[in-house]
Amino acid sequence: MPTLTLLQAEGLVVRTLTRCRTDVDNARSVARALVAAEVDGLQGHGLSRVPSYAAQAKVRKVDGLAMPLVTRPRPGLIAVDAGYGFAFPAIEAAETVLREAAPAQGIAAAAIKRSSHCGAARLPVERLAQAGLVAIMFANTPAAMAPWGGSKALFGTNPIAFACPLPGRAPVVVDLSLSKVARGNVVTAKQRGEKLPPGWALDHKGQATTDPDAALHGTMLPMGDAKGVALALMVELMAAGMIGANYAREASSYLDAGGPPSGTGQLIIAFDPEAFGTHAIARFNVLAVAIESQQGARLPGERRLALRAKAKAEGLVIPEKLFAEIEAL
Amino acid sequence: MPTLTLLQAEGLVVRTLTRCRTDVDNARSVARALVAAEVDGLQGHGLSRVPSYAAQAKVRKVDGLAMPLVTRPRPGLIAVDAGYGFAFPAIEAAETVLREAAPAQGIAAAAIKRSSHCGAARLPVERLAQAGLVAIMFANTPAAMAPWGGSKALFGTNPIAFACPLPGRAPVVVDLSLSKVARGNVVTAKQRGEKLPPGWALDHKGQATTDPDAALHGTMLPMGDAKGVALALMVELMAAGMIGANYAREASSYLDAGGPPSGTGQLIIAFDPEAFGTHAIARFNVLAVAIESQQGARLPGERRLALRAKAKAEGLVIPEKLFAEIEAL
Repeated sequence: MPTLTLLQAEGLVVRTLTRCRTDVDNARSVARALVAAEVDGLQGHGLSRVPSYAAQAKVRKVDGLAMPLVTRPRPGLIAVDAGYGFAFPAIEAAETVLREAAPAQGIAAAAIKRSSHCGAARLPVERLAQAGLVAIMFANTPAAMAPWGGSKALFGTNPIAFACPLPGRAPVVVDLSLSKVARGNVVTAKQRGEKLPPGWALDHKGQATTDPDAALHGTMLPMGDAKGVALALMVELMAAGMIGANYAREASSYLDAGGPPSGTGQLIIAFDPEAFGTHAIARFNVLAVAIESQQGARLPGERRLALRAKAKAEGLVIPEKLFAEIEAL
Repeated sequence: MPTLTLLQAEGLVVRTLTRCRTDVDNARSVARALVAAEVDGLQGHGLSRVPSYAAQAKVRKVDGLAMPLVTRPRPGLIAVDAGYGFAFPAIEAAETVLREAAPAQGIAAAAIKRSSHCGAARLPVERLAQAGLVAIMFANTPAAMAPWGGSKALFGTNPIAFACPLPGRAPVVVDLSLSKVARGNVVTAKQRGEKLPPGWALDHKGQATTDPDAALHGTMLPMGDAKGVALALMVELMAAGMIGANYAREASSYLDAGGPPSGTGQLIIAFDPEAFGTHAIARFNVLAVAIESQQGARLPGERRLALRAKAKAEGLVIPEKLFAEIEAL
């Protein structure tokens, strides 16, 4: 299988997308995000997306030429219109303003509407934490989960990501989707002709199923039962309803080039933790050390750091088939 | 069993607490909170707390005479020092400033440190939503859950509450603790001499247990496994670490009069949803109606509204034993 340095991998993505109606700066932003996810071992949000991104840019389901439009309706609010383009240039624009607004205001939020697949939600909050901020990100995604007791999907798997700085080392990073497992696992089971473990999904009538096909026509089960769905509703109301993005059930798939733009939303809240005058970053470390000192426990996100170091040293191994597919574009 | 009107119940709480070293305005604030929780069917956060609150005020574990001190370190941040008093006067003070700060700033946050048991977290966010804001509340509580893979409790059951306004009707309200079940259920099982269902708790070695005694010396399991613990960590870092409150493992019990003050924290974030210019409140209703139109599904918090209407019409039925216990104080 081909092994690429991170720069080579980014170059490959930029070349592919710029051939498919995408502005070069936008392509660079997408490339950084996909390679960073791949490096962290999140292949589902990594280079595997290049073929579908290219196809969507070609037919303008995602507008690769869109420039994010940033406004500031209130001192603490940054509104970013992604213009049905890729999410990543809009997220980077939001981060730039948040890094200035959060220390000045104490708390600030950036809302990104008319957006698309935001990939690994851990990455933007981690970068904000590297800049000394505490950050939470909520994102809605195309419909995958039903309201509790119902059978039709109204909410996405709606990730929540969080990061906070630690003194002199990598931030604590939490990143989770609110479904029990990601839908990609069902797709994989179908490809392999395997049954699903119980507890992953419901069919279109709201009945438990272990058949991947029935699951793909049905809904994913939430993590934590009714509580997980309640959190998905919360994310949907904030990251779509409040900010003017499409709800999950109004959003087309992230995976194919059919239909109108997805138009989903992301909401990033950032705090300046030192604004409280409580030596917050040193205090964060107290809890981190207490976790690390327990046998069998570790800080969430630690495994990603090890994978990242390995990829930086050894490069990225890309599946032959995917590499050929990207090269062919 | 005695039946009290809501005013009679509030009067009973005020009389009891003012006899136990509590300022009358503070006592009124506590009374409103406990009666509101009781009315909503949340007896664990209702009048059942009066005996332990009175005992804690008597020995100054909770300082019933403390006045919340409100400062504004940044335009978007409200810092409330509860002075080791009851949480409710501090939360009400925070709400007053948030109702002005959130519309002006677009987003604002109130942090309450040196605080105590905050009761039903749904109530403050619901009141903010009734004032047209979208609100999230995070609270840490005394240690109950271990880090994933560990065996010693480092996090509370750490509730997350959320509310958003709907046009012309009661807000959507989400309120959940991050443990699978509340610790109170274990106490009840012990009192009844019953075993616990599997999946609720671990013993002090981190092994699954169905023995209530072993569970009370061990830890509660999170909702949603590792994901629930990750959210509890997020809440702990924000609602305690960042704002200068005690971590769960530094906090004494809410339930007895022993030890120093609990000193836990609460963090409330409020948005002005109309700041985005997206007709947000009308859009919230679109999702609410989509949920309500599915057979078997309902908006979270709906059952509380029915209980509330019933209590307002018929009064509160107080268990004989609890009533006698309060009267005796």
